[in-house]
Amino acid sequence: MSLIVQKYGGTSMGSIERIRNVAQRVAKWHDAGHQVVVVPSAMSGETNRLLSMAKEITPKPNSREQDMLAATGEQASSALLAMTLLSMGVPAVSYAGWQVPVRTDSSHTKARITSIDDTRVRADLDAGRVVVITGFQGIDDLGNITTLGRGGSDTSAVAMAAAFGAEECLIFTDVDGVYTTDPRVVPEARRMKVISFEEMLELASLGSKILQIRSVEFAGKYQVPVRVLSSLTDPSIPLDEERNSGTLITFEEDQNMEAAVVSGIAFSRDEAKFTLRAVPDTPGVAYAILGPIAAANIDVDMILQNLSAQGTTDFSFTVNRNDADRTEQLLKEQIGPAVGAGEIISDSKVAKVSIVGIGMRSHAGVASSMFQALSEEGINIQMISTSEIKTSVIIDDKYMELAVRTLHRAFELDQDRD
Amino acid sequence: MSLIVQKYGGTSMGSIERIRNVAQRVAKWHDAGHQVVVVPSAMSGETNRLLSMAKEITPKPNSREQDMLAATGEQASSALLAMTLLSMGVPAVSYAGWQVPVRTDSSHTKARITSIDDTRVRADLDAGRVVVITGFQGIDDLGNITTLGRGGSDTSAVAMAAAFGAEECLIFTDVDGVYTTDPRVVPEARRMKVISFEEMLELASLGSKILQIRSVEFAGKYQVPVRVLSSLTDPSIPLDEERNSGTLITFEEDQNMEAAVVSGIAFSRDEAKFTLRAVPDTPGVAYAILGPIAAANIDVDMILQNLSAQGTTDFSFTVNRNDADRTEQLLKEQIGPAVGAGEIISDSKVAKVSIVGIGMRSHAGVASSMFQALSEEGINIQMISTSEIKTSVIIDDKYMELAVRTLHRAFELDQDRD
Repeated sequence: MSLIVQKYGGTSMGSIERIRNVAQRVAKWHDAGHQVVVVPSAMSGETNRLLSMAKEITPKPNSREQDMLAATGEQASSALLAMTLLSMGVPAVSYAGWQVPVRTDSSHTKARITSIDDTRVRADLDAGRVVVITGFQGIDDLGNITTLGRGGSDTSAVAMAAAFGAEECLIFTDVDGVYTTDPRVVPEARRMKVISFEEMLELASLGSKILQIRSVEFAGKYQVPVRVLSSLTDPSIPLDEERNSGTLITFEEDQNMEAAVVSGIAFSRDEAKFTLRAVPDTPGVAYAILGPIAAANIDVDMILQNLSAQGTTDFSFTVNRNDADRTEQLLKEQIGPAVGAGEIISDSKVAKVSIVGIGMRSHAGVASSMFQALSEEGINIQMISTSEIKTSVIIDDKYMELAVRTLHRAFELDQDRD
Repeated sequence: MSLIVQKYGGTSMGSIERIRNVAQRVAKWHDAGHQVVVVPSAMSGETNRLLSMAKEITPKPNSREQDMLAATGEQASSALLAMTLLSMGVPAVSYAGWQVPVRTDSSHTKARITSIDDTRVRADLDAGRVVVITGFQGIDDLGNITTLGRGGSDTSAVAMAAAFGAEECLIFTDVDGVYTTDPRVVPEARRMKVISFEEMLELASLGSKILQIRSVEFAGKYQVPVRVLSSLTDPSIPLDEERNSGTLITFEEDQNMEAAVVSGIAFSRDEAKFTLRAVPDTPGVAYAILGPIAAANIDVDMILQNLSAQGTTDFSFTVNRNDADRTEQLLKEQIGPAVGAGEIISDSKVAKVSIVGIGMRSHAGVASSMFQALSEEGINIQMISTSEIKTSVIIDDKYMELAVRTLHRAFELDQDRD
C-alpha cells in the first residue's frame, strides 16, 4: 500500500462521462489498497468561460477578484468527482485549496505555494477516503483565495505529492508520455520510459507543453518521482500495466541513463533573430542594447557577440517571435541610433533546435557530433548556445524538420534503450 | 451615513450588463456616503446548471459535495460584481461565506446560520470599501461549505443586516413590493408601503414567493427592518426616491397599521382535500390517520373533524397537491382499512384563500365578515382554519379568483390607506 497523487487535466474532466472514467480509474487504485489524492483541473472550457466574463467587464480585472472567480472552476469539478466516487460506493471527500490549507504568497493570478498542511488530508486517507483537492489554487496569509496561474494544477499535484510524502505523482494527460522528439515530425520518435529530472527541466524550458515548468522545478526541489501517462486508456486497464506506462521523471541516474548521451530533441519556430552590424565596441555596449529590451519586458534568449578587428562588433540576439515587432521598433527608433549601429538586420525565419541529454555532462564531443551531422546535410548554424546538458542552435527555419530528423538518427534515438 | 445591506436576486445578476446595473446602483449608495454590504445570488440559471450536472451523476448526490458544487455560483457572481465596482473606481472586495465567516450548523443543503463574525467586514467598511458577500452559504464547525437551501440569499442578507447592525436590509427583486393580493388576479391590488413583520410571516407561509419564510423569521428575531423593492428601475433613480419605494416590513405598529383590519389576501391552488367518512370515533383515531401520513414525510395543512351522534366521525384534511397521489394510496391501502373508514373521498379541485391582518387581533367579527362576503357570492366554505392574524378557507377552486376579488373589495383593500 502506498500513497499516490493523481492529477487529471481539463480534457480528462471535460464532461460527466469523462469524470465517470476518472472516477473508475481512481476507484481501481483505491480498491487495490492505495491511498489516493486526486487533483483535478477545471472542466475544459470552464476557466475560459469565467475569464471571458471578467474580460467583458474590464480588460484588466482586479487580480484578487479574478482569482476568486477562476477558483470556482476547480471547486466545481472537484465536487463533481467526489460525488461520482461516492455514488460508486468509494468513500471520498473534496477540498478547496483553502480547506487543506494550501498556503501561498499573495501574488494573485501567479501565486507560489509556500506550505501545505497535511493534517486533515492524512486523517481522511487513514480513514480510507479518497481525497479530491482542487488544483491551481490556495489561500494567502490574509485569507484571500489565490491561483497559481495557467497550468498550475500540475504544480499543485507535485507540491501535494511532496507534502504528503507520496510514492509517486501521476500526471494523467492526453499524451501517453514524453517522447524523444515530436512524433508528428519524426515518426520514429520513441516514448522514453524514464527521463531525468534535469532533462525534463530543459525540455520544459525549451517549450515542451507536457508539464508546466514550475511543477518540474518543484519535483526537483522535493525529489518527487513524477510519471506522465495517458488518461485516454480504458480506465479498467490492469493496475500493474498502468503503473509502468508513460514516462517516469526520476532522480536516480542509473546505468541505462548514463548510456544515453542524448535523450531528446526539442525544437521551436517561436524565434526571431536580430543583428546589429558594425557597432562601435565600447564597454557597456551589450547593456546599452539589451537594457531597453529588458525594460520593455521582452525576454532575450540567445546572445552572440563577434569581436572584429576594426574596433566594431556584430551583436545578435533572439527573442520570441511574438515580440519581434516591438523589438524591431525599439532597435530602429531608439537603440540603433544610440549605440551607433551600422545596420540592423531582423530575421523571423529562424528556428531553434536543441539536443538534451544528461550524458552530455560526461561525454565530450557531443556538440561537435551535432554540428557535424547538421553540416553533412548542408544546414548552416547561425547561433549556438550551450548548457551543461543541452546544446541549442539557431538555423534557417526551412531546415528545421530536416535537422530534427537528422539529429534523431545521428544520436540513435530511434533505438530502444530500455 | 448609515450601514445598508442590499440583496440582489439571480435575475438582477443574470448577465454582465445587469451586473453593471447593480454596480451602478450600489455605487450611488456608496457615493452618497453609506456603508454598503451587497449580497448577490448566483447568476440566474447557474445554480440549475450546476445541480443538473450533479443529477446527471446520481439522482441523490452526496449533500456535502452538492453544497461544495452549488456554492461556486455565488462565489463567481460576487467576484464579478466586486470586479465591476472596482473597474468603476469604487473600492470593493468580495468574500465567500467562509471568509467572513458566516457560521452555520452542518445540515448540508438546508443549513441554519448560527453566527456571523463582523470583524473583517467592519474593517473593510470603515476603510470605505463596498463589501460583497456570497449569499446562500456558510461554513460549519468542521470547515465544510454549507448552503442554506433555495432562496437562502434572502436569509443571508437579513442575517448579515442583523449581525452588522444595518439600518435597513434592502431586498432588490423583480417586483416592486408586496401587494394586497396578486395584481394578476385583482387589477385593483395595491402595493403596501408598510407591512408588519407578522403579516409578512403569514403571507410567506401562505406561499407568497416574495421572501423566503426563514428570512422573515430572521428579520423578526433580530428586529431588522427589511424593504422589498424593484431592481428593474433605472439605477440612477434618485436615492431619496429609492429609499421610499417598495414595501417596508416593520416592527413598529403605528396608528395607520391598526386602522387596517385586513392587510392582504393570499391564495393557492396547491391544495388537495381528503375526507374519511363514518370513521368509528375511538380515542387516538386522529393519530391513526395522520401518523402514517407524517411518517411518509407529507405535510398536512388543515384538519377538520366533525363529531356525529352515531359514534362515527367525518375526518378531513388537506395536503399539498404534489403529495395527493401518495396520500390517496396510503389512505386506500393502509389507513382506511386500519381505522374502519366507511368511505374515502379525495378532492383536488379545491383552493385555499386567506385574509391576513394584524388588526384582526383587536377587531372581533373579521372572520364573520369574510364568511358573509363569500356567502353573498354563493361560495360554499368547505374548511376553515384560523390563527391570531389570519383566517383561511378551503373552497371549490373554480371560485378562487371570485373569492379573492370579493374579499379584496369587502375589506376595502383597493382604498389608499397611507
